[in-house]
Amino acid sequence: LLGFGNVNRTLVRLLVGREAEIRARYGIEWRITGIASRKLGWIADCNGLPTSVLCAGAPARASSLCRPPAREASTSISNVREWLQAAQADVLFEATSLNVEDGQPAVGYIRAALEHGAHAITANKGAVVYAYDELSKLAAAQGKRFLFESTVMDGVPIFSLFRDSLPTVHLRGFRGILNSTTNLILSGMEEGLTFDQSLAKAQALGVAETDASYDIDGWDAAVKVSALVNALMGVRFRPSAVQREGIRNLSAQTVRAARCAGKCYKLVCRAARTGETVEASVRPELVLLTDPMAQVNGTSSIVYFETDIFPELVITENNPGLEVTAYGMLADFVRAVSEGRRRDREEIS
Amino acid sequence: LLGFGNVNRTLVRLLVGREAEIRARYGIEWRITGIASRKLGWIADCNGLPTSVLCAGAPARASSLCRPPAREASTSISNVREWLQAAQADVLFEATSLNVEDGQPAVGYIRAALEHGAHAITANKGAVVYAYDELSKLAAAQGKRFLFESTVMDGVPIFSLFRDSLPTVHLRGFRGILNSTTNLILSGMEEGLTFDQSLAKAQALGVAETDASYDIDGWDAAVKVSALVNALMGVRFRPSAVQREGIRNLSAQTVRAARCAGKCYKLVCRAARTGETVEASVRPELVLLTDPMAQVNGTSSIVYFETDIFPELVITENNPGLEVTAYGMLADFVRAVSEGRRRDREEIS
Repeated sequence: LLGFGNVNRTLVRLLVGREAEIRARYGIEWRITGIASRKLGWIADCNGLPTSVLCAGAPARASSLCRPPAREASTSISNVREWLQAAQADVLFEATSLNVEDGQPAVGYIRAALEHGAHAITANKGAVVYAYDELSKLAAAQGKRFLFESTVMDGVPIFSLFRDSLPTVHLRGFRGILNSTTNLILSGMEEGLTFDQSLAKAQALGVAETDASYDIDGWDAAVKVSALVNALMGVRFRPSAVQREGIRNLSAQTVRAARCAGKCYKLVCRAARTGETVEASVRPELVLLTDPMAQVNGTSSIVYFETDIFPELVITENNPGLEVTAYGMLADFVRAVSEGRRRDREEIS
Repeated sequence: LLGFGNVNRTLVRLLVGREAEIRARYGIEWRITGIASRKLGWIADCNGLPTSVLCAGAPARASSLCRPPAREASTSISNVREWLQAAQADVLFEATSLNVEDGQPAVGYIRAALEHGAHAITANKGAVVYAYDELSKLAAAQGKRFLFESTVMDGVPIFSLFRDSLPTVHLRGFRGILNSTTNLILSGMEEGLTFDQSLAKAQALGVAETDASYDIDGWDAAVKVSALVNALMGVRFRPSAVQREGIRNLSAQTVRAARCAGKCYKLVCRAARTGETVEASVRPELVLLTDPMAQVNGTSSIVYFETDIFPELVITENNPGLEVTAYGMLADFVRAVSEGRRRDREEIS
């Protein structure tokens, strides 16, 4: 586990809760042999760290209880490669914070994991938007998987759907609502709050970051669009190529006037293939109240996919709980390991 | 190909159109070695029937051009087992018409195919609602697949989603709109047509059957609910167990009055787990115009899934074309054969 914030902590709890089912149904047994974070340092114990402690809850408590094995094992660990080695890692769960400039250091961590011979599972959009091609090829060459279901729509199996369930289907474009913070702020403004009040409310709910400019200016949505384009449309596409306008210039007055006219503002993501390339945008759009997009409120999200077989396939996730992102990593883990086991047996043959 | 109506004819066209991609991407080569239908009889040629002829279009033309190989090969063929043998079938595409009473003869055909050692892919809901358990177990015992993605939502990968993309997720219930004919009739009535006029229009569009009572009385929707419950909730559940009310008793006046009140009638399917069993219903329900279900018109469909991880995951298919059902069979084919090849290699080891 690289990064030990909400996502990886929830992942441990889910893994423990579903341990029996994962063993019975997929034949997978696991133990956690390494945890690393800025607070904890590089902790590794190839015999397994105590999950009862890891999933006990509060970060302070977990980290203090983790330290004993850490001290012994971590003395000689100076970087991710040594840590992977010491942990004898078969799978890396990468959940460090996003660097929207170049995806580092996550890209380097994932590269190291694949080179070490582990599957790399990430909740970090940076690795997808800056290194999808490189990491996918490296994974294939190593006979391992690079999976990232948690990066868009909190673990709803969007990437898995196109990769595994829609053979020979080609994605022409998509549109949707993919950022919770702006969606919450706009709803608050419709209900009478000012922009600042609504932002403060979203922050109090724990949805918006202290520095919310990344969401408000449309960067988060642009990064998600870029991840979808890279992985589902086969086009290398950086977040900076998305035509991007945030919600900063929408006044509460404008938002409420739209509502009175039977419409509402949503921060809408769009991407469409145009010849060899893709055009994409993130900007506030007026949506009719009868449009299903208008009903996507709070932390809910929606994507309309336009394909060569299905004219419009729509996935909506309503009111996700806190565990959905971590679940995406659990699902990637089951996918990677059950497929990996199959491949190992093939190679022996 | 068992049954040679729209679905299997479109399937041939899709297979031919995507032949190069299926070979390049999945390593699958195919030929069609048998066709059977009431009109054509049991046609088999293990060297392959000419696909250029099979996908040429009109049934009359296809069948007349098919007859030459038919006469030679079919003389000794008296039933499905001999036909599968003569065709040396690796995969059966079963697309005969539905028998809502007991699923026969489709269940027997699929059993024969699995016993013969072929994957069985069906667009026939009868086999799923009357023999899901038996056929799934038989398929597993034979190392083959019994797949039926086309039976609900025209090939949108609903079954594949839960089976392959949502490991350890448990379905608690679902609701949605799954029948096109009643949906079209209700829309027509809202626009001012009588029930009979609206039905005639749906028939003219080719969506409603000449005898539309199967749709109008909610049987088609009940059968789809039953298929979803059997395959996704692990409960044996016959269509007759669905509390069923069709749209026959809705007058045009009632439908238009609802519209004036900002609501609309939809034939809504529901299923929910209650302890060890499931309660399910199909009946007209009043839906707010701002509810996304209200925007599901014509041949579009929607399902809301309630699960232990995702509180509400919604799949909507808008304006499907004619090829979506056949596509579901193509996708099942790629799934079955690429997994089958993997297993074969494993067994050799």
